[in-house]
Amino acid sequence: MATKHLAHWATSLTPSSIPASVQLAALRSLYNYVGCAIGGSNHGTVAKAYDALSPFFGPATSTLYGRGGEHEGSKVDAQHAALLNGIASHVHDYDDTHLATIIHPTGPVASAVLAYAEYHATTTSSPVSGEETLCALTAGIEASCKIGLAVWPQHYDIGWHITSSTGSVGAAVAVGKLLKLTEDQMAHAIGIASVQVVGLREMFGSDTKSFHPGRAAQSGLLAALLAQKGYTSSPQALEAKRGWANVVAGGGTPQLDKYVGELGSKWEIEANAFKPYPCGIVCHPVIDGCIQLHHEMVAKSLKVEDVQSIEARVHPLVIELTSKRTPRDGLEGKFSVFHGGAVGLLYGKAGPAQYADNVVADLAVISLRDQIEATPDEQLAADETYLTVHFADGSKLEKHVQHAVGSLEVPMSDAQLTEKFVDQAALVLGKDGAQRASDAAWKIGQAEDIVKVLQAL
Amino acid sequence: MATKHLAHWATSLTPSSIPASVQLAALRSLYNYVGCAIGGSNHGTVAKAYDALSPFFGPATSTLYGRGGEHEGSKVDAQHAALLNGIASHVHDYDDTHLATIIHPTGPVASAVLAYAEYHATTTSSPVSGEETLCALTAGIEASCKIGLAVWPQHYDIGWHITSSTGSVGAAVAVGKLLKLTEDQMAHAIGIASVQVVGLREMFGSDTKSFHPGRAAQSGLLAALLAQKGYTSSPQALEAKRGWANVVAGGGTPQLDKYVGELGSKWEIEANAFKPYPCGIVCHPVIDGCIQLHHEMVAKSLKVEDVQSIEARVHPLVIELTSKRTPRDGLEGKFSVFHGGAVGLLYGKAGPAQYADNVVADLAVISLRDQIEATPDEQLAADETYLTVHFADGSKLEKHVQHAVGSLEVPMSDAQLTEKFVDQAALVLGKDGAQRASDAAWKIGQAEDIVKVLQAL
Repeated sequence: MATKHLAHWATSLTPSSIPASVQLAALRSLYNYVGCAIGGSNHGTVAKAYDALSPFFGPATSTLYGRGGEHEGSKVDAQHAALLNGIASHVHDYDDTHLATIIHPTGPVASAVLAYAEYHATTTSSPVSGEETLCALTAGIEASCKIGLAVWPQHYDIGWHITSSTGSVGAAVAVGKLLKLTEDQMAHAIGIASVQVVGLREMFGSDTKSFHPGRAAQSGLLAALLAQKGYTSSPQALEAKRGWANVVAGGGTPQLDKYVGELGSKWEIEANAFKPYPCGIVCHPVIDGCIQLHHEMVAKSLKVEDVQSIEARVHPLVIELTSKRTPRDGLEGKFSVFHGGAVGLLYGKAGPAQYADNVVADLAVISLRDQIEATPDEQLAADETYLTVHFADGSKLEKHVQHAVGSLEVPMSDAQLTEKFVDQAALVLGKDGAQRASDAAWKIGQAEDIVKVLQAL
Repeated sequence: MATKHLAHWATSLTPSSIPASVQLAALRSLYNYVGCAIGGSNHGTVAKAYDALSPFFGPATSTLYGRGGEHEGSKVDAQHAALLNGIASHVHDYDDTHLATIIHPTGPVASAVLAYAEYHATTTSSPVSGEETLCALTAGIEASCKIGLAVWPQHYDIGWHITSSTGSVGAAVAVGKLLKLTEDQMAHAIGIASVQVVGLREMFGSDTKSFHPGRAAQSGLLAALLAQKGYTSSPQALEAKRGWANVVAGGGTPQLDKYVGELGSKWEIEANAFKPYPCGIVCHPVIDGCIQLHHEMVAKSLKVEDVQSIEARVHPLVIELTSKRTPRDGLEGKFSVFHGGAVGLLYGKAGPAQYADNVVADLAVISLRDQIEATPDEQLAADETYLTVHFADGSKLEKHVQHAVGSLEVPMSDAQLTEKFVDQAALVLGKDGAQRASDAAWKIGQAEDIVKVLQAL
């Protein structure tokens, strides 16, 4: 029944049946996605994919974010837009996280739904509104997260990249909403998406990691398009003995009925979190604390030059995963809690600009980095830290971070999301362009015609 | 080491290093594929996919077989050609079978490699020869079958459609050959293909079943194209703890080293079999025997009208899987050993034309069908049967089929393959067109420029 139930719930969903808090969560997720897609758009991984696939592009209907609307190659066909924007959105590992499953849900779903929305405008005179877009996005994200919960954690443990292995179904559901599929068609779309299982954890560290959400977006879009034309699959695609959940459960017992049964009563998108810093999440408490200390030092006119040492008590995982003492470039910097702490204290920021290669090699940063000591403390939570800054005159500043910003307990504010968006988009579009894109993206929900907003990105 | 070993072996393979018997097996596989792709090309499943995807087609470089070279829409971009020809090649369940794994290996591999070969001609002045094509096809089919063997049978048992779940890797390897990828690039292509795991057995009986080999073809092509531009994956994609084999093994212990280690010493393509009849393989011994009896009756001037009853002793699986007593249309006829036996005895043929809806409803066929009794005998092999035809005058004819035609022991002859090709292609192209296509397809191996042959299909 899970497949039919999901299809029924998704086709029945309307903007007015979605609580305001859920709509807001959807808008924040979409806004954060757009910033990440712009921020990743000039990454080499995207360039390689663009280069490989451009000979096959179809009619250019759909925007590649960050490429500048008026430039050659800033639009491609919807299927390739879904793929390329999906890659861009994930390539800096800066996208959102549904913490209960560690699915990054918006990349696959939004990449498909936005690419399709622009295509839609070329085939019909009725525009797609921002409200409809958020409704479709919500349906898709709920679908991905619910089926992800049903196979968590064994599915991830065995080696599936759960973002993409659930993302094609989410993308199909979302595009299916814009296509106004019937319940039967939606069930078929879910089925066609479910046979395209994308993403292995073994690929982490290579270009293929960010290929995963892109391909999931494209696969879901394809599934919805096929279903619209009457292409059939199994109406028990998810729950059948040899259907999606049992095949990919990794030895666990899927709990589809439980989680799919909660659709509409418990909204997963409200538990979607955003990363304030483009690095491993275990570093975040130290960075958060160092940024708070930076502002405190500025307020008290304390100078970084007078810092003698910084002690950080952290959860043991921080040491295990991010204790690179002498990172050589931006990528290695992401695995160095010392670098993260140093830029936080020095600049009061740890955005993409602070992970540029030249910043990692900056002598002031290196000097501060070398003053940081981290000691493991099993008593601490994974998102908790105690920091002490010792100054030359013997004085000290202390900071206890109970939950890092970006956690569910301390979510990023809209202002912080905006800063994150603008900081990463500015590296692609310049500061003014980034600000304009941010303003446009915040207004997606109110747009009468989503296409006009997207073309401004 | 399996990934690197496969990449090394595949990139090193040259036409001159392939034994003549293997080259012949490759040609027969490709020939049979072309017939199936033409035969399936006007199926409704293909039409739905074409209809859904035509708005996204890129530059039309690659032929859709069976559509007539000069017609509008007979060519599409290479990625969509791979998908659509792959669907067509499988839609009648009439393609080849690597019996040890029940992989249908040629569909995913040939659909990708031929679609790419035609694209290639638009970007370079050096044509792809028939010899190179067969070499690439061989590499791809060996790759699919070896990794399939490594995870057989649990991988299939748990619910993966092994044709497509191994097919994307095979397709990537084959296209990688034509792209002349380096060994490193080939390893990355294998890795990018390995994360696109397509196909669930739950979809058998729906349009999505034949989507599987098509999507695998497209996924492999995409992987090779990305790898050519430097897109990276993991060099241990197949064998890593969280790589392809362990993730999809369905609880079994993958034996990658064993099977991948046999590349070049044991050729799987030589164990590739062809179906003489477009129906479940368990029916084949009865059909084979009935066709032999038809010819014997013709030779002896015995009349079908004088037949009183037909007894068939068969393996119990035949009863279990194909005992539909009163099939109502062609599709149901495929699950009726009685229909298969009847058309074999009546027409001496059981090709696609004998599974048309009107033949299943034909009174002469129904009358004969109702005279057939099948009794299970556990002593028989699955591809064995004993038949007895009783005539009104009390005489009888007997036939023992030890191995059905199309088995490894009694492979289809080239003449039988030709009859199969022409019979199914004639339903699309007419008899003359089918004969011309068959003549062209048999000459693929000698072609200096494969494109000229393909455009004639």
